Amino acid sequence: MSKLRAAFTALLLICGLAAPAFAQSDPLPSWNDGRTRQAILDFVAKVTREGGPDFVKPAERIATFDNDGTLWAEQPAYFQLQFAFDEVKRRAAENPDWKNKEPFRSVLNRDLKGLAASGEKGLLQIMAATHTGMTTDQFATAVTNWLASARHPTKQRAYDELVYQPQLELLAFLRANGFKTFIVSGGGVELMRVFAEKTYGIPPEQVVGSSGVVTFRLGSDGKPELFKQGKVEFIDDGPGKPVGINRFIGRRPILAFGNSDGDLQMLQYTTAGPGARLALILHHTDAEREWAYDRTSRIGKLDKALDEGKAKGWTIVDMKADWKTVFPPERRP
Amino acid sequence: MSKLRAAFTALLLICGLAAPAFAQSDPLPSWNDGRTRQAILDFVAKVTREGGPDFVKPAERIATFDNDGTLWAEQPAYFQLQFAFDEVKRRAAENPDWKNKEPFRSVLNRDLKGLAASGEKGLLQIMAATHTGMTTDQFATAVTNWLASARHPTKQRAYDELVYQPQLELLAFLRANGFKTFIVSGGGVELMRVFAEKTYGIPPEQVVGSSGVVTFRLGSDGKPELFKQGKVEFIDDGPGKPVGINRFIGRRPILAFGNSDGDLQMLQYTTAGPGARLALILHHTDAEREWAYDRTSRIGKLDKALDEGKAKGWTIVDMKADWKTVFPPERRP
Repeated sequence: MSKLRAAFTALLLICGLAAPAFAQSDPLPSWNDGRTRQAILDFVAKVTREGGPDFVKPAERIATFDNDGTLWAEQPAYFQLQFAFDEVKRRAAENPDWKNKEPFRSVLNRDLKGLAASGEKGLLQIMAATHTGMTTDQFATAVTNWLASARHPTKQRAYDELVYQPQLELLAFLRANGFKTFIVSGGGVELMRVFAEKTYGIPPEQVVGSSGVVTFRLGSDGKPELFKQGKVEFIDDGPGKPVGINRFIGRRPILAFGNSDGDLQMLQYTTAGPGARLALILHHTDAEREWAYDRTSRIGKLDKALDEGKAKGWTIVDMKADWKTVFPPERRP
Repeated sequence: MSKLRAAFTALLLICGLAAPAFAQSDPLPSWNDGRTRQAILDFVAKVTREGGPDFVKPAERIATFDNDGTLWAEQPAYFQLQFAFDEVKRRAAENPDWKNKEPFRSVLNRDLKGLAASGEKGLLQIMAATHTGMTTDQFATAVTNWLASARHPTKQRAYDELVYQPQLELLAFLRANGFKTFIVSGGGVELMRVFAEKTYGIPPEQVVGSSGVVTFRLGSDGKPELFKQGKVEFIDDGPGKPVGINRFIGRRPILAFGNSDGDLQMLQYTTAGPGARLALILHHTDAEREWAYDRTSRIGKLDKALDEGKAKGWTIVDMKADWKTVFPPERRP
């Protein structure tokens, strides 16, 4: 009898039927108590309450997150641009002409003035040289190696460690409640897919981003390969975000999280659907632990979306006030 | 005590711990015993055997299926074309000029000769008139209504009932073994997404297909909407299939299933990856229960892929020999 009872209890635990004991542990330990945290908890509670007026079927619990400035940092420049600069340096030896050729010369000499003078055209040349003219596999290898070796110029940490701990908890909390989490970012999709699964728990097929044209061909060994051409295919930013959501996901999110004016249309599109919706904007207010910037920033400008968010009652996350921790502990001491 | 024992047994069943009894039931009842069925069972067994040499992590168990002629029938014409013709008829009253204007006149008069005379240009006009110039929501409604009312000209059944029962079983079997199932089809993505979840258990975000340009705008009511423009964006066929797989899934499949030369590059790309791979081709050999066609067919031509499949030892599914049943039972008697 006591054996059976013990087995019964063990089974209850195994099956998760004794879950209330676990469920009481805090799913968002890095979020301070307050209105923001409560807005998230309330929203998740109501859309998952079976039989409730706001219940949403698990298949329709789509959550979309911007990446730069929402899941990982974006200062002093988008990390993808840092990757491009680091790649120019790494590949300088195999491209001896670069040391006398703009905009590469400026990158190699850390000449910011010269780089600025080459303008948008120069930036596009740097992006083309480091992101195209190779197979998708070769590009993924370059990104993997860069993440393993490069360090952020001021934080002195690997770029994929400069992700936000509270957001990692939020992603996990949403998934534990039946949500499917997606990235919808202006960043390059092939770069994000290299680390999104390991870092955020978001598999490649749930990463939507900007892309260049890729073509299918048979390689020199006769094996099929995908080659990255020097032509932009899709810019997943601003009005491109709802378009990207429609193209890649095919279903309107019920929760969207952004941090800049480039996320405005995604937030509008998300909240325009029927039923319960949650729109969140991360406001970078923490000059000490991270950075403080908004309306006048060159990177991650937050102006119109901040006004519209306040007017429409979207949830504005104040990094300094709402987050107990910003970055996760260092993985390499 | 007996109460506790009964509760214990019930709990075992609820928790699926008594699953072995169920697992022995046949997962592919509509597939005849034989080499084809065994090839599928063997492949799934080896990639899911933990610790085995061919084990594949669940996140990497990507399976891609063509739709037309692989998951549902495609004769006497692609069902999407049938939809377009039916839509021209349905919307003739609101477009009075159509009755005197080619190619619409020919569609309305069932004049196949006239339609043929209008050629590819005529077909594109019909596709544009029925697939563009409206919001994505309006298009989805049109497809939903068509599926609910239209009947296949010779089989006299709803189009979404002309799906293959053995494939429904295979999709479910793969998912039960941790696979993520995708459609990768030359068909229009916005049409397939309307029924793929209900019919195949494949959610919108796992449907890859051809698409037209869609733009974001504020509608007359000030609400954001997505508008289908009259311009082709992506053709997910032939060499476009591995490109679409890379773009939308970002991971190479370990299993791919097609039925025509339009699937050749997807099968090549799938089998070119390392480790265990399964490439399948459905050969339409059953003139009695379905249709028999291959090398000379106007629709679903299977010629080069059949040769390459035989040469490379891909699994050629012989519909007549391998399938016990073709279509599922009628849902409306």
